[in-house]
Amino acid sequence: MSAASAAAPAAMPVAELDTPVLLVDAASFERNIARMSDLTSAAGIACRPHGKAHKSPVVARMQIDAGAVGICCAKLGEAEVMAAAGVPDLLITTGVIGRSKIARLMEVARQAKTAVVADDAGNVADLAAAAQTAGLRLDVVVEVDVGQGRCGAPPGEAAAGVAAAVARSPWLRLRGLQGYHGSIQMTGGFAEREAGARQALDRLLDTARLIRAQGREVELLTGGGTGTSAIDAALGGLTELQPGSYVFMDSNYDAIEWQGGAAQPFERSLTVLGSVISRPAPDRAIVDVGMKAASSDGGALAPVDLPAARFRFAGDEHGELSFADGTCPLALGDKVAFYPSHCDTTVNLHDRFVVVREGVVEDVWEIAARGRSQ
Amino acid sequence: MSAASAAAPAAMPVAELDTPVLLVDAASFERNIARMSDLTSAAGIACRPHGKAHKSPVVARMQIDAGAVGICCAKLGEAEVMAAAGVPDLLITTGVIGRSKIARLMEVARQAKTAVVADDAGNVADLAAAAQTAGLRLDVVVEVDVGQGRCGAPPGEAAAGVAAAVARSPWLRLRGLQGYHGSIQMTGGFAEREAGARQALDRLLDTARLIRAQGREVELLTGGGTGTSAIDAALGGLTELQPGSYVFMDSNYDAIEWQGGAAQPFERSLTVLGSVISRPAPDRAIVDVGMKAASSDGGALAPVDLPAARFRFAGDEHGELSFADGTCPLALGDKVAFYPSHCDTTVNLHDRFVVVREGVVEDVWEIAARGRSQ
Repeated sequence: MSAASAAAPAAMPVAELDTPVLLVDAASFERNIARMSDLTSAAGIACRPHGKAHKSPVVARMQIDAGAVGICCAKLGEAEVMAAAGVPDLLITTGVIGRSKIARLMEVARQAKTAVVADDAGNVADLAAAAQTAGLRLDVVVEVDVGQGRCGAPPGEAAAGVAAAVARSPWLRLRGLQGYHGSIQMTGGFAEREAGARQALDRLLDTARLIRAQGREVELLTGGGTGTSAIDAALGGLTELQPGSYVFMDSNYDAIEWQGGAAQPFERSLTVLGSVISRPAPDRAIVDVGMKAASSDGGALAPVDLPAARFRFAGDEHGELSFADGTCPLALGDKVAFYPSHCDTTVNLHDRFVVVREGVVEDVWEIAARGRSQ
Repeated sequence: MSAASAAAPAAMPVAELDTPVLLVDAASFERNIARMSDLTSAAGIACRPHGKAHKSPVVARMQIDAGAVGICCAKLGEAEVMAAAGVPDLLITTGVIGRSKIARLMEVARQAKTAVVADDAGNVADLAAAAQTAGLRLDVVVEVDVGQGRCGAPPGEAAAGVAAAVARSPWLRLRGLQGYHGSIQMTGGFAEREAGARQALDRLLDTARLIRAQGREVELLTGGGTGTSAIDAALGGLTELQPGSYVFMDSNYDAIEWQGGAAQPFERSLTVLGSVISRPAPDRAIVDVGMKAASSDGGALAPVDLPAARFRFAGDEHGELSFADGTCPLALGDKVAFYPSHCDTTVNLHDRFVVVREGVVEDVWEIAARGRSQ
């Protein structure tokens, strides 16, 4: 849908929306994009926001318009959606394994400048064979396990071996290294988070040094996330940041300490709007927001503007708001907004964002890559 | 897509599917449908399976072909999809609140025989007004809180008052009562579960008696679920059962005791198939099944055919399989199937079921109501 003017007389107030519905506060969202753009450009580091957070080519386009060099995709299916929508530069941050998926990857690489990570020499051979068949040269980034203990070749010789396999193929181009340490993004204490980021960076830089000493170019060092973004920018070393959550900010980010006790640099711009669907007792209300409308993996939702309320998931389609003082102020049909505890998995439950400015619906953005986990 | 013969020479083996993908084992699924049909018909109770479990008109049609009188929908949006696909008889088991949604409800009621629950006299007045505008008579079922403490009018006078409001409107038809006690469905001990079901039933029957004593007909007493299905059938009293999970069976149902220590009467027919995407260490593998491919609200996934493996969610798109004996037998690209801990929220992450019989892909069923939580 196209943008409607907020000043138009027919503008729809948020309170008229059917619920549960995912809302983006336009002003907060825009400030978040501008702040990450400022942070990375001031540090001289490229910004490649992670599309797994929003799964929307509309948002990707806005990030690129604000200076991002391209978009990260967690999955090939996301990259297919982004490429088809004209997003010009993609990094797939998870390995693409197996004949069928690698064939799909070649189609993406025909549509957009595409790089993919790899951590295994056998997978590199498969990528090279498919690139030869497709008649193209594919950019490959070697994934290094810098501390998360998930995917990635171990730092040092093992990663250098994968890089050598990439560099030896005329159908592949060795772009550099990825080192993402997801588990430190929400480490509460600033000093501890900084130490984790520094250790991860050291592992990545040591590996890059080794590969360069073997006579190979390592142009790209990509990694980092929202929680370490200011740290990564200050440390230097990475050539590209991959922040995702900063556009929306999980309520769980409230628990982390920023440098020098500073205020959180990014704002919570995403809410799930629900409605009261039952008032079974004086001290509680049931809303239509359950585990199918907001993810529960990050914990309970945080009600907006209802400080006395406590939220509890009460099933797939129900949530309970209870009031310790015994008096629930809500009536049947009243709207209640909630901050998600984990935005990425909440976004993946919805087909669109409804964009709100000053209480009025301004636009609708399709979450076109929702569910594209293949 | 239409059904393909399993004997066709071009049949695709499951191992060739891109992952993560949701699989239905056709034989187990069919036995589950037949068993619930047998259980309810032997007890002389109508079966109205809950569509929230599968969100698929294809499955709804199979349940109706096996004798179900219609389908339950948790949300209006599900009912819209079911009605549009020609499912002829629907009960919406959650109240429909507010002008916009009630207008949509009237559209559904034009397409299919539709009943909706209500627990509030104000909502009943809104339903009556909309039915008058639409020129139809809407079936209403009064929801009674039989113990769950979620939605529903309290049993007795309060529920009878809502029933009276329905009965007084010439635009509404009082069908009966709904009493669903979701929180006892997975109560582990059989005796405790039976006691909970008996107490819930007593509350519903007492309320029905009161309403009948006021001269009103209460034809429908609907409720129950998979965990209490055999108990509900044996107790009698309900005229209609609403089981949902029995078609797929959450792995969490393994922990509950069936009557007399009998084997679980329904089979686990749903799996999420994943692939190994990284082999970072000798004792573990990373698979492409994370919280965006399988819900985590019911706990970890249960790997099929890998008794030595322990599964841990390792992010939105990753899972970790670790092997206590230190030896992971899996290679990059190997396929691993997992039983979901909670099927309903897992199904809601996917757009289709891939149906498998004897290791071969037989059909694809669209999950057309996925995400329809409005």
